[in-house]
Amino acid sequence: MPESTPTHVSDEVLERFRKITSATAYSAVWRLAPPEGQEWFASANYQLCLMRGVKAYTPGRTLVGRAQTLRFVPARPDLLARTRKGANSPEYLAMAKCGPNDVLVVEAHTFDEYACILGNMKTRQLWHNKAQGLVTDGAIRDLKMIVDDYELAIFAKNRSPAGNLPFLESFEEGRVVNVGGVLVIPGDVIVADDDGVVVVPADRAEEVVDWIEEQEEAEEFVIGLIDGERVPPGKYYPITEETKERFRRHKEEQAEQEKNAKETGE
Amino acid sequence: MPESTPTHVSDEVLERFRKITSATAYSAVWRLAPPEGQEWFASANYQLCLMRGVKAYTPGRTLVGRAQTLRFVPARPDLLARTRKGANSPEYLAMAKCGPNDVLVVEAHTFDEYACILGNMKTRQLWHNKAQGLVTDGAIRDLKMIVDDYELAIFAKNRSPAGNLPFLESFEEGRVVNVGGVLVIPGDVIVADDDGVVVVPADRAEEVVDWIEEQEEAEEFVIGLIDGERVPPGKYYPITEETKERFRRHKEEQAEQEKNAKETGE
Amino acid sequence: MPESTPTHVSDEVLERFRKITSATAYSAVWRLAPPEGQEWFASANYQLCLMRGVKAYTPGRTLVGRAQTLRFVPARPDLLARTRKGANSPEYLAMAKCGPNDVLVVEAHTFDEYACILGNMKTRQLWHNKAQGLVTDGAIRDLKMIVDDYELAIFAKNRSPAGNLPFLESFEEGRVVNVGGVLVIPGDVIVADDDGVVVVPADRAEEVVDWIEEQEEAEEFVIGLIDGERVPPGKYYPITEETKERFRRHKEEQAEQEKNAKETGE
Amino acid sequence: MPESTPTHVSDEVLERFRKITSATAYSAVWRLAPPEGQEWFASANYQLCLMRGVKAYTPGRTLVGRAQTLRFVPARPDLLARTRKGANSPEYLAMAKCGPNDVLVVEAHTFDEYACILGNMKTRQLWHNKAQGLVTDGAIRDLKMIVDDYELAIFAKNRSPAGNLPFLESFEEGRVVNVGGVLVIPGDVIVADDDGVVVVPADRAEEVVDWIEEQEEAEEFVIGLIDGERVPPGKYYPITEETKERFRRHKEEQAEQEKNAKETGE
Amino acid sequence: MPESTPTHVSDEVLERFRKITSATAYSAVWRLAPPEGQEWFASANYQLCLMRGVKAYTPGRTLVGRAQTLRFVPARPDLLARTRKGANSPEYLAMAKCGPNDVLVVEAHTFDEYACILGNMKTRQLWHNKAQGLVTDGAIRDLKMIVDDYELAIFAKNRSPAGNLPFLESFEEGRVVNVGGVLVIPGDVIVADDDGVVVVPADRAEEVVDWIEEQEEAEEFVIGLIDGERVPPGKYYPITEETKERFRRHKEEQAEQEKNAKETGE
Amino acid sequence: MPESTPTHVSDEVLERFRKITSATAYSAVWRLAPPEGQEWFASANYQLCLMRGVKAYTPGRTLVGRAQTLRFVPARPDLLARTRKGANSPEYLAMAKCGPNDVLVVEAHTFDEYACILGNMKTRQLWHNKAQGLVTDGAIRDLKMIVDDYELAIFAKNRSPAGNLPFLESFEEGRVVNVGGVLVIPGDVIVADDDGVVVVPADRAEEVVDWIEEQEEAEEFVIGLIDGERVPPGKYYPITEETKERFRRHKEEQAEQEKNAKETGE
Repeated sequence: MPESTPTHVSDEVLERFRKITSATAYSAVWRLAPPEGQEWFASANYQLCLMRGVKAYTPGRTLVGRAQTLRFVPARPDLLARTRKGANSPEYLAMAKCGPNDVLVVEAHTFDEYACILGNMKTRQLWHNKAQGLVTDGAIRDLKMIVDDYELAIFAKNRSPAGNLPFLESFEEGRVVNVGGVLVIPGDVIVADDDGVVVVPADRAEEVVDWIEEQEEAEEFVIGLIDGERVPPGKYYPITEETKERFRRHKEEQAEQEKNAKETGE
Repeated sequence: MPESTPTHVSDEVLERFRKITSATAYSAVWRLAPPEGQEWFASANYQLCLMRGVKAYTPGRTLVGRAQTLRFVPARPDLLARTRKGANSPEYLAMAKCGPNDVLVVEAHTFDEYACILGNMKTRQLWHNKAQGLVTDGAIRDLKMIVDDYELAIFAKNRSPAGNLPFLESFEEGRVVNVGGVLVIPGDVIVADDDGVVVVPADRAEEVVDWIEEQEEAEEFVIGLIDGERVPPGKYYPITEETKERFRRHKEEQAEQEKNAKETGE
Repeated sequence: MPESTPTHVSDEVLERFRKITSATAYSAVWRLAPPEGQEWFASANYQLCLMRGVKAYTPGRTLVGRAQTLRFVPARPDLLARTRKGANSPEYLAMAKCGPNDVLVVEAHTFDEYACILGNMKTRQLWHNKAQGLVTDGAIRDLKMIVDDYELAIFAKNRSPAGNLPFLESFEEGRVVNVGGVLVIPGDVIVADDDGVVVVPADRAEEVVDWIEEQEEAEEFVIGLIDGERVPPGKYYPITEETKERFRRHKEEQAEQEKNAKETGE
Repeated sequence: MPESTPTHVSDEVLERFRKITSATAYSAVWRLAPPEGQEWFASANYQLCLMRGVKAYTPGRTLVGRAQTLRFVPARPDLLARTRKGANSPEYLAMAKCGPNDVLVVEAHTFDEYACILGNMKTRQLWHNKAQGLVTDGAIRDLKMIVDDYELAIFAKNRSPAGNLPFLESFEEGRVVNVGGVLVIPGDVIVADDDGVVVVPADRAEEVVDWIEEQEEAEEFVIGLIDGERVPPGKYYPITEETKERFRRHKEEQAEQEKNAKETGE
Repeated sequence: MPESTPTHVSDEVLERFRKITSATAYSAVWRLAPPEGQEWFASANYQLCLMRGVKAYTPGRTLVGRAQTLRFVPARPDLLARTRKGANSPEYLAMAKCGPNDVLVVEAHTFDEYACILGNMKTRQLWHNKAQGLVTDGAIRDLKMIVDDYELAIFAKNRSPAGNLPFLESFEEGRVVNVGGVLVIPGDVIVADDDGVVVVPADRAEEVVDWIEEQEEAEEFVIGLIDGERVPPGKYYPITEETKERFRRHKEEQAEQEKNAKETGE
Repeated sequence: MPESTPTHVSDEVLERFRKITSATAYSAVWRLAPPEGQEWFASANYQLCLMRGVKAYTPGRTLVGRAQTLRFVPARPDLLARTRKGANSPEYLAMAKCGPNDVLVVEAHTFDEYACILGNMKTRQLWHNKAQGLVTDGAIRDLKMIVDDYELAIFAKNRSPAGNLPFLESFEEGRVVNVGGVLVIPGDVIVADDDGVVVVPADRAEEVVDWIEEQEEAEEFVIGLIDGERVPPGKYYPITEETKERFRRHKEEQAEQEKNAKETGE
């Protein structure tokens, strides 16, 4: 059973996601139609896409990238005997996969909101590799150094001076994780800003960003109507299919006019 | 049964509230004597005046204004069939009442702290109307845009990229609401800053601000004594009735001296 | 805008609900198809039907009945001056509507989980009227007496020795309430047992109980298959449309055989 | 990397665990000396052995058995396409491994404490296999039927009428899980009663039960001293090494006397 | 500064408290008039009398007695070097003071709701001394044994298999404690039942029980009126001063009639 | 029993602590070896050294100083009659002890996270005395003024406009307190920054700072290796005893070279 998604989201698609907000990404994923053949089945939706208990620790920064996953579990001597392998321990293998368009996504899953997963020593590898940032439901240590020196975007549950031991230990990487109540499959797209962290399934990413780009233009169009008529936004919002059609016609007309103007201008 | 309070708090009184802190407003409301005829009855107090779980999302901003109320309830198709009326939906009717000295106060009352009541599209109406701001026990979406573009002061439970549906829907406006464990009757005065959000009953607002203005002057006087004598503040604080009398005499003497100086000066 | 639902759920339908569990009621409401004309709209579902933070205080008791609603808000002297009317106060008007097939459903909506809405003195009216029981997100006082003497089924947030004042006061009855994060419209059907409290919209109640009765028979049929073949339940569960068809054929055959047996027997 | 522990705890050792309490098991695991070669390393302990947020739903029942593990993750259509295999879905494979001395240990790891992992239909397989019981940090549905009909001991986070979809789906079995903040490796010993759920690492299980049996005898001896002298328990408790030696001598003397008595008697 | 209250509550007064509920005790303490000379001072009340987060672990049992206090703090080696004195450690000195009309009241004050203060070994001293029971905001270990063998009434935050070390250590006894957010001065009266735990200040105990006894008779009288007239309880409840006067006259008349009947009868 | 620690931490040692982070302080205290004679006893550790629920309210500020302690308890009229002594009330006696290298450490221990311990009037005394700052598990009022005017570093549970009465009252100073789940003995060293608040036992403070200074140099050395070889940090981190020896040799060699260079240079 292959656990990384077969769809590789291209850097071009990621670039398009960089222009949007987590709020728009949420709406787009939330409304995704179920895949063919799973239409009327209770579970055929993508609505659990917003991480809970994870917030921005680098306010003002947007984070977009492909997820590389890492899972911590509670530490125990017999477990450590298996997983501790110096530079080949799971956390380093995971960070080794994080290049300039990647985000390390870490399941800490701990009752102790002060138990940290990583500090400035270990995350140095993310800086070496020019990764985008880090998303976790655990705590982060030495946060000031990580932010000041490594310029990573950080979304976490908490910050704290505590270490990972004896509470937590990295266990496996490159498999599905549950972070903040959201499933993350390696390769999924992370879209995060001060409003929150949204996960976009890799195999629907392009469809999602297509919808978003049109929706954002339509919202701009509608804002023009609202401001022009000085009416309550409820007249045109939420955007009905009818209003969207009106927007599409308007866009076509504009394109036509621009084309004519250009031709005339020549 | 009229639900908006019969007392209209004037813009002049609001102006006086703009100079004080939520802490002083709290003390003043908390100590309000019961109305005549309800003296010795367990409930005859105003002590539930501080909202819980609502905090400043525009740090450094003070918010003072008359409350215009809106109540959300969990959404259900048969409910939406009644309440969804485009520009006449309850949220737009409520925002239509919000002028330059008003605050939209919204009961979300939801278990899901990520369910938003409003985002940048809908709150555009508050900006059109030059309202002071928004207070809610729900979450707000697109917060960056709302703060940057609309200059509203925002006090909320949370921020999040999620929408209101399918969780919440606006239900009624202009009636009493329970926000953060505090009763708000339309027309009440909201006094909020980084310390918190306090509700001042409209029919006691003038009495409250009178007490505050004298109390603040008395505190300045007492600070003078404490600093002058270099003593523990406990010598003069909390301010006893005796110290307050001393302050009043001091103030009269000062006024007298100023008057004399003026007469002499002429 | 009429707030009680136009559909009156008959005593016969309630009787059918008495034989089922809250788990089956949950599944049935959760899967309700959206009403015609609202098919592809994010909010067109009934999934918020399970109360949170409300649990059984009369373990072993099932509670089924029509909801009569009551809403508390934080107390304030000027509010009490309007609402306190002795025997005509909102709580008594609400209890007056509760007959033998009714359930009092009370929104307390309080930050203080020890503030009670009612105790043995007030709930005596429910006993007079032979009501089924009481569901609330607030606390109940004198619980032992209420359970021992009045034989009401009680589902609540907490029990406590505190009173309602100065925290809470009954404010209105017969309108929609939000209890445990679920919308309740007067007349809706409450189905509660030790697993939890589920709200069935009145205008879908008959459709819901129809589905449940067939589903429960189908589950019995499937259990027969699983036990007979000694296989993992996953072979036949969740019940696919195909298995359900098999069940229906089986049921028809059985009916046929019984009919024949009867004719032959005569 | 083999994930089930190489040590198989025998039925005889389990039988010895059945006579003790979770409190004694906790003390014994908590004080386990680190394995050789890991003595002075911060993590070399076994102290995270008590599950948090998991409580007895079959009060009065003790549960002892070998752990068979199962892990749920948040559901998503592309995940279900991989994991849903009818009778070969992960939950059925896990239950298939549960014989008369086994306990199904399930990681739900969900923000929604009302999302259930299993109900009466699926757990029927545990009853077929005569398993000991079920431990989970998720909720259980149809609890009454499970307890009444299947006689399983149940330790869970909650009970609820909700299903697992669209919130959770079983993902993998037979690998390490994190339940209630405790690492469970397949084959570990579960010792649970009304006080709580304790996990005993399989490779230390025999050593643990040896220590417990002596400790319990020593406590009985010390209780005799305390009652005999009518002194504060602090005189002999906590049991010092010195008192334990006194107990051992006493035990030897008793054995000696019994032996002599027997010889004399013959 | 003497810390135990100068008022010794007699066994006779305790006997009177044994007949009432925690709900009535709460109402009586809550409404206590401020002491003379502190009438109009914000703090002059006794309203923080109900313990939060402390519940009955011996359901059905009422607990009434004088408080003997004990305070735990987080453990540290240099602290233990001072406080650990075998039979003279603070917990044993506190239990030594607990006779047949006493209750051990213990402040645990811990973030870890699984850290226990005491188990069956130490509480044996309470059984030796025939104490009434134990109230704590910490957890209790070996609860089954304590309840079954020692017949103590137990009110606690939690139960757990964990010990007190390395989390907590008893520190001092016989001084004021804060348990469940309520101040307890040694000698105060504890009134606890399934509804909750209420603290009655020793120097007001007699006044409190006097008020309660009359209030309970008045409630019985009012119930008679409500049942007789078959009216909503709101007609006579809450009991106004006027209704209480009517009750007092009724009681006097009854006494008169009984006296006459007796004289006539002779 | 003397409650302030016999060890006075010198200003020189405090100066050395000013250069480190709370994360390093945590690691150093956490790994402290038990005192002689308590080696193998469950409680012989210092691991509860990180305050929970206490966070920085003056972000960017580091706070280092000796703890002066103060304890609040729930208010009650009979308690206030004993403790309220104007300038000699416990809070003023505690602040009187706070000089330029001291930190006021306050146990609030309240269920109401909005009840404040102090505001701008009372903390004026800390400003008079040039104290370093304030650490508390309670809330602070008038925070803006305290931070702007008094330049204190503040670590607290919350901020709020509420006062201390009728919830809390200062009770005693100069004795051990439990703040955020950590024992603080007067004289202990507080090391706090944006990551959190750590308590260093006074009698181990010098040993702790010695270890830290070497550890920080060793980490710099290891960072050099990691960056130089461009390897995963796991190759050299966590720092083994072997790597530390290598660092020490390197340091000696460097010192040697510098000495030689100096001699040669001359």
